[in-house]
Amino acid sequence: MTHANQPIILTGDRTTGPLHLGHYIGSLRARVQLQHEAQQFLLLADTQAMTDNVGRHQRVTENVIEVALDYLAVGIDPEKSTIFIQSQVPELAELSQYLLNLVTVARLERNPTIKSEIVLRGFERDIPAGFLMYPVSQAADITAFKATHVPVGDDQLPMIEQANELVRRFNNTVGRQVLVECDAVLSQVPRLPGIDGKAKMSKSLGNAIALGASPDEISKAVKDMYTDPNHLRVSDPGQVEGNVVFAFLDAFEPDSAKVEELKAHYRRGGLGDSVVKRVLNERLQALLEPIRARRQELAQDRGEVLAILKRGTLSAREVAGATLAEVKGALGLTYFLD
Amino acid sequence: MTHANQPIILTGDRTTGPLHLGHYIGSLRARVQLQHEAQQFLLLADTQAMTDNVGRHQRVTENVIEVALDYLAVGIDPEKSTIFIQSQVPELAELSQYLLNLVTVARLERNPTIKSEIVLRGFERDIPAGFLMYPVSQAADITAFKATHVPVGDDQLPMIEQANELVRRFNNTVGRQVLVECDAVLSQVPRLPGIDGKAKMSKSLGNAIALGASPDEISKAVKDMYTDPNHLRVSDPGQVEGNVVFAFLDAFEPDSAKVEELKAHYRRGGLGDSVVKRVLNERLQALLEPIRARRQELAQDRGEVLAILKRGTLSAREVAGATLAEVKGALGLTYFLD
Repeated sequence: MTHANQPIILTGDRTTGPLHLGHYIGSLRARVQLQHEAQQFLLLADTQAMTDNVGRHQRVTENVIEVALDYLAVGIDPEKSTIFIQSQVPELAELSQYLLNLVTVARLERNPTIKSEIVLRGFERDIPAGFLMYPVSQAADITAFKATHVPVGDDQLPMIEQANELVRRFNNTVGRQVLVECDAVLSQVPRLPGIDGKAKMSKSLGNAIALGASPDEISKAVKDMYTDPNHLRVSDPGQVEGNVVFAFLDAFEPDSAKVEELKAHYRRGGLGDSVVKRVLNERLQALLEPIRARRQELAQDRGEVLAILKRGTLSAREVAGATLAEVKGALGLTYFLD
Repeated sequence: MTHANQPIILTGDRTTGPLHLGHYIGSLRARVQLQHEAQQFLLLADTQAMTDNVGRHQRVTENVIEVALDYLAVGIDPEKSTIFIQSQVPELAELSQYLLNLVTVARLERNPTIKSEIVLRGFERDIPAGFLMYPVSQAADITAFKATHVPVGDDQLPMIEQANELVRRFNNTVGRQVLVECDAVLSQVPRLPGIDGKAKMSKSLGNAIALGASPDEISKAVKDMYTDPNHLRVSDPGQVEGNVVFAFLDAFEPDSAKVEELKAHYRRGGLGDSVVKRVLNERLQALLEPIRARRQELAQDRGEVLAILKRGTLSAREVAGATLAEVKGALGLTYFLD
């Protein structure tokens, strides 16, 4: 599967819930394409999800299979991409441990991503140690696979900087190039808003459309979608900016001429929300119907999904194990060799 | 080797240098006895030593075998005690990772042992993250072996409290008793001063007598030993308190009546430093001669020492692996079982 000079991608998802259309637009769609051009490692990040889900471990572990189903349903091919479970690759914990010595607590606390996540999660002074350390654990995930490219949102750029800093520090410490720096790959696609118009679609905000949503759930979500609150009568001119229905059409309707035409009509008045919503609903139903069907079919055979994850995990362990052996070798932690 | 109700001891040493008489008095002597009464796990703490020895990893790894030689030379029997290398038991890194989620950064920063070690090492704000985490890593070492007893100096009591706190928090989180709390076992023996009179004997302070010291090195150390600076003439009354030679006699001369007699004589005057030093020198030479001989003999056969460490490490991995399996089972991280 490996080719020289082929990019190596490391990416994945925290397993706190099934994935939704925001994930599809933001990452999954690209992964389905990239698996033909790169060696792609897809991390089901249960260990990382545990760092701020103490006591909710059942939710984290149960969703491993849900996220795997989403991956497979959208067309990620386990013969091309390596899908694996973070907690089942102990080499990552070991590598984290060595990287932890190369960064100060103050540096981690200054990490802008960590800073804003701390605010977001309301931790204040009660930051779990595991959570503060997660940029290091993420650096271990990236470097274990010698990833050359890591897709991120722009809010995650400091994490990549942190990982590369650790790479340089490690290589300097041992006096040779063992670990590899990576490039952040920023998504070109604007972030999909929630159906309520909030900037981010999120299951916990209740404004998401899951990839496994039923036809009725999709219709209802489209019906509830936030549009232009001042567009009261069909004949009124309407606003396209901030109008979730149009943001979705931009994301999901491949016929962009058609979308532009609808926008123009809506702006000048005479186009009702219900008409635009019908167009979007048809589009989403058509997109999600085969995904849902595949997801349901796969869900019938958990054993086969677990077998796929086991194969991916073993293959990930081999790669991570080889890197860890190099790391431990460079540190002289090789007492029992030869 | 395990018996029900037999205490389980976890203890060990950071591998930053060969051990000295301070270790002998403070811990090694007791371990030689305890191995007959308890199941004893002896940790060669190379990973922990790395947390504040970045760039000095070679020193850390080279001293693994030196400390092992010291253990074997003083009479620790690998058939009775399990001697193992921390870095070669990856289960400890994994267990640490899960425990890290159960403690806040603020709590770790309040740990008095960590606080004073930070001052001692001059870290100030630049505390390596791995160093701040080391109470958690220590808790993993203790709990992985379900240790019931952990010998410590009184400065290390907060570490045991921290470990037990993590045990309670973990068991509460998963709703069952998986990990085991331990008791701190405080040394009954006063701490051996350095030969210069400083409170602590330490290789890095240059005031130690190594277990492998040559006869000349021992004689020189005794000759240089700090006594009573006001005891100028033999006929002067001398002070026993703070006098290193008498502290050593208290520690190493089994004939305590003889020691009391010397003290009385020294106090009233008429006993020269050189005479007391001669008594001590003979005692230390007699103590260290067989230890040195055994150490030299063992050092001839590194292969055999490594084989001992390998057997101990495999046996430690089995025990730690069983605990880790319980921990991961309790968290639901058992996707590939059955």
